[in-house]
Amino acid sequence: MQFTQRTHTCGALRAANTGETVTLNGWVDGRRDLGGMIFIDLRDRYGLTQVVFAPQHNTAVHKQAHELRAEYVLSITGTVQPRPEGMANADMPTGEIEVIVDSFEILNRSDIPPFTIEDDVDAFEDLRLRYRYLDLRRPVLQKHLLLRSKVYQVVHRYFDEHDFIEIETPVLMKSTPEGARDFLVPSRIHAGKFYALPQSPQTYKQLLMVAGFDRYVQIVKCFRDEDFRADRQPEFTQIDLEMSFIRAEDIYRLIEGLMQRMLKETIGVDLALPLPVLDYYEALERYGSDKPDLRFGMELVTLNHVVRGAEFKVFSDALEAGGIVSGISVKGRAEEFSRRKLDELTERAKDLGMGGLVWMKAAGGGLTSPVAKFLTDDMIAGIRESMQTEDGDLILIVADARRKLALEALGTLRVELGKELDLVDRTAHRLLWVVDFPLFQWDDETQRFYAEHHPFTGPKPEDVPLLDSDPGAARADCYDLVWNGSEVGSGSIRIHDSALQAKIFSILGLPEAEISEKFGFLIDAFRFGAPPHGGCALGLDRIVTLLAGISSIREVIAFPKTNKALSLMDGSPSTVSPDQLGELHIDLRKTTP
Amino acid sequence: MQFTQRTHTCGALRAANTGETVTLNGWVDGRRDLGGMIFIDLRDRYGLTQVVFAPQHNTAVHKQAHELRAEYVLSITGTVQPRPEGMANADMPTGEIEVIVDSFEILNRSDIPPFTIEDDVDAFEDLRLRYRYLDLRRPVLQKHLLLRSKVYQVVHRYFDEHDFIEIETPVLMKSTPEGARDFLVPSRIHAGKFYALPQSPQTYKQLLMVAGFDRYVQIVKCFRDEDFRADRQPEFTQIDLEMSFIRAEDIYRLIEGLMQRMLKETIGVDLALPLPVLDYYEALERYGSDKPDLRFGMELVTLNHVVRGAEFKVFSDALEAGGIVSGISVKGRAEEFSRRKLDELTERAKDLGMGGLVWMKAAGGGLTSPVAKFLTDDMIAGIRESMQTEDGDLILIVADARRKLALEALGTLRVELGKELDLVDRTAHRLLWVVDFPLFQWDDETQRFYAEHHPFTGPKPEDVPLLDSDPGAARADCYDLVWNGSEVGSGSIRIHDSALQAKIFSILGLPEAEISEKFGFLIDAFRFGAPPHGGCALGLDRIVTLLAGISSIREVIAFPKTNKALSLMDGSPSTVSPDQLGELHIDLRKTTP
Repeated sequence: MQFTQRTHTCGALRAANTGETVTLNGWVDGRRDLGGMIFIDLRDRYGLTQVVFAPQHNTAVHKQAHELRAEYVLSITGTVQPRPEGMANADMPTGEIEVIVDSFEILNRSDIPPFTIEDDVDAFEDLRLRYRYLDLRRPVLQKHLLLRSKVYQVVHRYFDEHDFIEIETPVLMKSTPEGARDFLVPSRIHAGKFYALPQSPQTYKQLLMVAGFDRYVQIVKCFRDEDFRADRQPEFTQIDLEMSFIRAEDIYRLIEGLMQRMLKETIGVDLALPLPVLDYYEALERYGSDKPDLRFGMELVTLNHVVRGAEFKVFSDALEAGGIVSGISVKGRAEEFSRRKLDELTERAKDLGMGGLVWMKAAGGGLTSPVAKFLTDDMIAGIRESMQTEDGDLILIVADARRKLALEALGTLRVELGKELDLVDRTAHRLLWVVDFPLFQWDDETQRFYAEHHPFTGPKPEDVPLLDSDPGAARADCYDLVWNGSEVGSGSIRIHDSALQAKIFSILGLPEAEISEKFGFLIDAFRFGAPPHGGCALGLDRIVTLLAGISSIREVIAFPKTNKALSLMDGSPSTVSPDQLGELHIDLRKTTP
Repeated sequence: MQFTQRTHTCGALRAANTGETVTLNGWVDGRRDLGGMIFIDLRDRYGLTQVVFAPQHNTAVHKQAHELRAEYVLSITGTVQPRPEGMANADMPTGEIEVIVDSFEILNRSDIPPFTIEDDVDAFEDLRLRYRYLDLRRPVLQKHLLLRSKVYQVVHRYFDEHDFIEIETPVLMKSTPEGARDFLVPSRIHAGKFYALPQSPQTYKQLLMVAGFDRYVQIVKCFRDEDFRADRQPEFTQIDLEMSFIRAEDIYRLIEGLMQRMLKETIGVDLALPLPVLDYYEALERYGSDKPDLRFGMELVTLNHVVRGAEFKVFSDALEAGGIVSGISVKGRAEEFSRRKLDELTERAKDLGMGGLVWMKAAGGGLTSPVAKFLTDDMIAGIRESMQTEDGDLILIVADARRKLALEALGTLRVELGKELDLVDRTAHRLLWVVDFPLFQWDDETQRFYAEHHPFTGPKPEDVPLLDSDPGAARADCYDLVWNGSEVGSGSIRIHDSALQAKIFSILGLPEAEISEKFGFLIDAFRFGAPPHGGCALGLDRIVTLLAGISSIREVIAFPKTNKALSLMDGSPSTVSPDQLGELHIDLRKTTP
């Protein structure tokens, strides 16, 4: 197609361009007919420029302009002129000027879009996803993807400056299901065999350390075939890295530097370093979560030492069973909590697996509560002191033999109340490390240990002896990066010793043959001089949502899938031809009705 | 693991560090016992440093060092000292110094590697691929992957500076087989349905233009399930880009700038711009190839006008059928071509589909040849003049009614002779554009047209009328980037008009229902104001081989597959469990014996 190419983008012109003849290419964003003139905002990725079709300037052109509709694609040529006195638009970078049109070409016409191209669109998400190419014209989505692109550039530059090598690892790899399900790819050349799509490049990046690459980084797609919770995608993007001859603290410093740079260069926020570090047990005890949101207080306070001996069965049962009594306090807002509201909170606590919820209101130097009669004056004073209570505070307490469950339930209440009471500073960015998780988690149902992180995670050096005596007590040399209550990264110092790796697999109860079949090449590799190494992976999709201050990762992915893993635009997944199946040596399974 | 971390890498120390106490971490690259001392070259990604265990310096440490073997991983601490008079190694950046060891730790031991870690390894490639993590320790492979990483960084920076947005497109997409086979991914959630892995992000990047992103770039994995020729991989990497409101020349300028920067920044080569542009027909006529190697001359010369009327049936038949007579000349080396050698060349021409090969040797101002008797003196003079012949030249001529086949056969001879006679300047980097290919290629067997490039390629504007009258004559508005005889990139100005796109599909003979099923969403999108746009994709793997001056792309990929699409290291593809198949609603097809 022959057409007149732009001399400027739609975001470029300023008062200094007055008098210049320019050509703009772009979309008709809106059209107003005023006083016999036609005003059009011409839009491209870079901005909007007002162009004017005036009968007194060019009669024929003005007449033709009546044909123009929303989303038509134009090339217009005209003269830059200042907007008339009092008509400048200070909210628009090009708001001082307009372009009076001498001639124009229609580069393409447009049907009426199924929804209006504007930020506050009221179309259902399904319709927007079906016409994603129109949805993506909305300025807010353009902004999110531009932000995402900036994040990539920060990552590229940062790791390049830090001597990392960017290396691509295979997408077609071996299926080693342990944890989430693999997506499989049938092989045509090798009948009956399958590749898997990577859940992460974990084994490959460790092999790159064995190979001596020292510092590896990759922005990489990973895949998990899960039953999708609200905000998961079957394919997602990680910033994946690994380093040799390092300790956990080296990873902290590296990633902290990246985060500081990213926040500064994308949204202009200063991040103070170093980040706080909480060990897993402390995070659980203080926030009831392994991903605490530090944007507000309301920390959990363990009250075991204060209420020991209380004649309140809920407390005493919990304590006798080695459990926990823990509370949070809502500062100064006790009066907002009616009996009904407190009943709702109690129901919520029950939903979360608790027997109930104890509430106390601080007043007159004491505590008003249905359970106050079971507590001594010392206990009441102790609670007030431990929780730094002032009159007017509301205290909420859970007690349970199941320590972790109780703390997590209270942690959930903390987060929900934080949001509900608007205690969360939504402009804040609070990042921290949560470290030293348990190495294994025991599963009662299958009566076996699972790797809390993944089976290549090293134990804390001082906990190695526990692998023989009490594996469940061993801590991992691992770290999660948490940002405003979301886990955005996770990593560990890896095992680099083949004997230790074999022992971990055996604690996980993997049969020798399965270990050798799935991970034999990695254990083999460790026999040839593997260096001490570690790394981490950061969730890029989530990071971009946090920078954008939004919640849905679908809003930062160009072509996302629904939570049923559908692409509504192209209709995938879809049926394929019998020929294709034949070549892949597979049949569809007959469904039994 | 607790260990003493390095203060320097193994490539860092210089004479200026003399006297410093340093710690190095690395691999034992080689060990020499000399005069009671043990010398070890300690290796990491950054270099080699000689470390010395001397009994007079530390008896215990020297004694322990006897245990050290190749590929052990060490942390050594010692003092930097100049090498003794006359022992400096100028070939080694650290060659002025050595480190005399005060203490060391063994961080890991190593079995004896299955092959020696050195550049000139004599192990078979299969063994190297099985132990790829050891193969990758070879300095030459480290160098190639470092080069590849530099290429990524140049690409990232270049496109960022040129206002491109980096956007990721889906890996799980719709199967639209047209051309190569798709890799398929069965859906667990949607029984009987499949995703496909992208052969390219073509449709998505065009939709990004419809969405108004204006300039898109992505370094992206693509997938083709082909029967692999020697140097193909099932997954490969492209630098993929697309731009709106542009002409082909804008793409030329952009990509040329990238190539100039890349050659300069990675291997220090200056590339003169603009690159030459040949149209497809000219490339074919002058080089017998659509990817001409310009590193040497020996251009093809069409002799039709000179030999018309010759009483030599081979020539006259070819000319009467509208074919071609074309020759190349080997300057000044006629004497090297014995009768036997010429017979071999004739056989080769027959292998390439020709009836034979005419040779002529220039001597005494004339031409000696078995066919000279059929040519007039004028014809002989005309051949000499057309081919700028001097005595001592050898001329090789093909003649055939099938013009393209004849030119390609001669083009192949040209390339083979260029290599054999060492006419190719192996240090040269000669890039050019080959443009304006035919839009369609007719397939006699299936009696239909195929898209020469892909079905979204626009015709040359002036050739649009040919779509109705003579589709086979229409040229595409497309361009290939050719580098030293390899195609490294390919692109086109796309169709952005839904009616024109529908017409192209119909010329390709795709049934309405199939078009709508496969590409309906794209044709739909074009109804809502698609801008004029175009782009290209560059083969990153091939580009890195050209920069490295090597031929196999397996040498620039960290974990490549064999030409049977096997990963010898992890053993993929592999069998999967019946449970996995069940969840995916597929069965293995029973093979009929």
